[in-house]
Amino acid sequence: MMNIPTSNRPRVVIIGGGFGGLALAKKLKNKNFQVVLLDKHNYHTFQPLLYQVATGGLESGSIAYPIRKVVQGFEEIYFRLANVQRIDTVNKKVVADIGTIFYDYVVIATGSKTNFFGNEAIKTNSMAMKTIPQSLNIRSLVLENFESALLTTEDTEQRALMNFVIVGAGPTGVELAGALAEMKKQVLPKDYPDLDLSKMEINVIQGAGKVLDAMSDNSSKKAQEFLEKLGVNVWLNEIVTDYDGKVVTTKSGKTFTAETVIWTAGVMGAVVDGFDSTVIQRGNRIKVNEYNQVEGFTDIFAIGDVATMMTEKTPMGHPMMAQPAIQQGQLLANNLSNLRDGKPLKAFVYNDKGSMATIGRNKAVVDLPKFKFSGFFAWFVWMFVHLMSLIGFRNKLVVFWNWLYNYLMFDRQARLIVRPFKRKTEESFKDHNED
Amino acid sequence: MMNIPTSNRPRVVIIGGGFGGLALAKKLKNKNFQVVLLDKHNYHTFQPLLYQVATGGLESGSIAYPIRKVVQGFEEIYFRLANVQRIDTVNKKVVADIGTIFYDYVVIATGSKTNFFGNEAIKTNSMAMKTIPQSLNIRSLVLENFESALLTTEDTEQRALMNFVIVGAGPTGVELAGALAEMKKQVLPKDYPDLDLSKMEINVIQGAGKVLDAMSDNSSKKAQEFLEKLGVNVWLNEIVTDYDGKVVTTKSGKTFTAETVIWTAGVMGAVVDGFDSTVIQRGNRIKVNEYNQVEGFTDIFAIGDVATMMTEKTPMGHPMMAQPAIQQGQLLANNLSNLRDGKPLKAFVYNDKGSMATIGRNKAVVDLPKFKFSGFFAWFVWMFVHLMSLIGFRNKLVVFWNWLYNYLMFDRQARLIVRPFKRKTEESFKDHNED
Repeated sequence: MMNIPTSNRPRVVIIGGGFGGLALAKKLKNKNFQVVLLDKHNYHTFQPLLYQVATGGLESGSIAYPIRKVVQGFEEIYFRLANVQRIDTVNKKVVADIGTIFYDYVVIATGSKTNFFGNEAIKTNSMAMKTIPQSLNIRSLVLENFESALLTTEDTEQRALMNFVIVGAGPTGVELAGALAEMKKQVLPKDYPDLDLSKMEINVIQGAGKVLDAMSDNSSKKAQEFLEKLGVNVWLNEIVTDYDGKVVTTKSGKTFTAETVIWTAGVMGAVVDGFDSTVIQRGNRIKVNEYNQVEGFTDIFAIGDVATMMTEKTPMGHPMMAQPAIQQGQLLANNLSNLRDGKPLKAFVYNDKGSMATIGRNKAVVDLPKFKFSGFFAWFVWMFVHLMSLIGFRNKLVVFWNWLYNYLMFDRQARLIVRPFKRKTEESFKDHNED
Repeated sequence: MMNIPTSNRPRVVIIGGGFGGLALAKKLKNKNFQVVLLDKHNYHTFQPLLYQVATGGLESGSIAYPIRKVVQGFEEIYFRLANVQRIDTVNKKVVADIGTIFYDYVVIATGSKTNFFGNEAIKTNSMAMKTIPQSLNIRSLVLENFESALLTTEDTEQRALMNFVIVGAGPTGVELAGALAEMKKQVLPKDYPDLDLSKMEINVIQGAGKVLDAMSDNSSKKAQEFLEKLGVNVWLNEIVTDYDGKVVTTKSGKTFTAETVIWTAGVMGAVVDGFDSTVIQRGNRIKVNEYNQVEGFTDIFAIGDVATMMTEKTPMGHPMMAQPAIQQGQLLANNLSNLRDGKPLKAFVYNDKGSMATIGRNKAVVDLPKFKFSGFFAWFVWMFVHLMSLIGFRNKLVVFWNWLYNYLMFDRQARLIVRPFKRKTEESFKDHNED
């Protein structure tokens, strides 16, 4: 039972407290709706920095923010910790593990999840990195690998334990590879003086012909240069077809013997059940019109990664990043008011603020709509933008302080195996990738 | 295989990286030993602040410190992540899950674990709080309880979810009760405006006739006063005999209906196998002489909580706290040198620096050997001593900053259910208390 009081205000149910869902909830603050916000976690995750949690640069708490704190003091808002199962569009209710709830308007803001493209072997043996628990698992596994590498003198085994294969060279893959390369240079030699770290390899395998596929050619080239300077092996035009827990195989026949494979090669919409297959488009995203209304409905909306708004300018939908989600969430708050009040709706226009990625110390690439640059200044801009995007003064300060410390001390303090990841058990991988 | 190189230096194997083991390892730095340090975690835990992790005041990373970082740059020291199973005293080797290792000297510094006094029902259903994973589990469970309490209108069920029973009123129990009481006053009303928090209860059940049994009568009285002022129910002279997961029963027949029981009522030495039962004394502690040599051996030592040194002044051994462990570890480093060099050993004399406990904002009690005080100044002293005792500049600063933030903002930011604790499953409780 959800136990939400009745109200004379119309009820908006928001499914998901990510960038889009929270932007919407905040904008609905004084708009005379009853808002019910559902999420399977009690915190918002700042996903762009997950790779730093995975590599011990940040504590999980500094990129997570309690959702209840975001909406503290709002009138008639109810947060519930819930796993939503489906939307009953006929009876206008949302069905979750904790009960059902009627809606006047419902907004699907469930984001995206890792796409293994149906390859069960890869899903069973590799690690996704989309959530905080997943990042903590990767951190534990990486550190456990080094502890295990110490216990053997067998060269092949040692190399497999110290071979980190990252599949996918989007921002997540590139940033993770850079962070691992810096650990290799700066942190691990001090921690493992009796280990031959020249045996450690970081292999990034990319299906496309360049890294950071969605960025400018110049930024892609620069990013690859940065990675290679840090000792990362970049493999382009290689499609990973199998990983049995021991050996990665690509379509062209290349193999990599590695105990750790981190899969950042694809995402797909985390849709909820209840819609015809015609509504679900490429990438498992829900087809919406320019007001984010799900095709065929006026009271059901989808925003952010899980939605695809196919316009002339964006035939494949908007990029699956924070900005479109935030902008759609903000506009939708106004459109919900307009809809209730019988006023005309405003069509969504994406304001592309650009994209960026950091590869390591003093190294980043930035594509602004009219200006592209890389290097130290780009790295500085990257840090500033990410800091400012974090929710809350405390998290901004904690992250800033950690970055300063890590930069000055060449350190990553959070290298703690707080909850060991039980490698080699199918159960643990299953739990990991279902998270 | 432990894979430790041979050396012409004598080998000291230290089992445990707690206060005692680390103090010893640090003092052995330039003493021409080969040191092998074993621990089941790759970090040192600052146990006195675990209750703050459990109540969301601190991140786990700020009270944990990577053991490898402590010993960075030391000559001939080898840390291994290992679960030690037993000591083979005949063949002079330590047997662990990762292999065996020969020793010239071995030091047992394994600390203590929770003592359920053989009560399986209590062990199965209640929560111990001796490690970081356990504190994180408690944090998750407490927050999950409030989320669940929101979903019911049944009064009895709601009260059970919001009834926190703490068994034992030593420093851990008292400090945890105080922190929960402050959450009730300061944090929870903002997070759960639609929950009637007057239904939340904190019950502390103490077997002895006063709280903080080991402290002065004055401090005990003051601490109880502080607790009661914060709304905590203190029950003295009550022995808990059963908890079936629903109802706590005491010897005198009192019952408490509660979903959460935190067990801080006893600790026992975390001994390793390999010794006669005559060596194991009251509280499962290993009998040592004034040089910390285990009875019957000259090359096997025990220090800290796991050791009991029964002298005229300490017929029951030293208190199970950080200070005796640290002081014994430091002295033992010199005694190991002396032993190797054929010099006489120095007997241990405990320098009692006093004890203290904090109950909440501006409230603490301090017993110094010659001076006892309580209130704001005691609270200030408590904070200063704990800050200075943390390892590393970074942790000191992070904890200081968090305390300042929590104090000024009446907040506990780390209220994140990062890895949900699966309540009501036997497996999870078993894992929890075995940790």
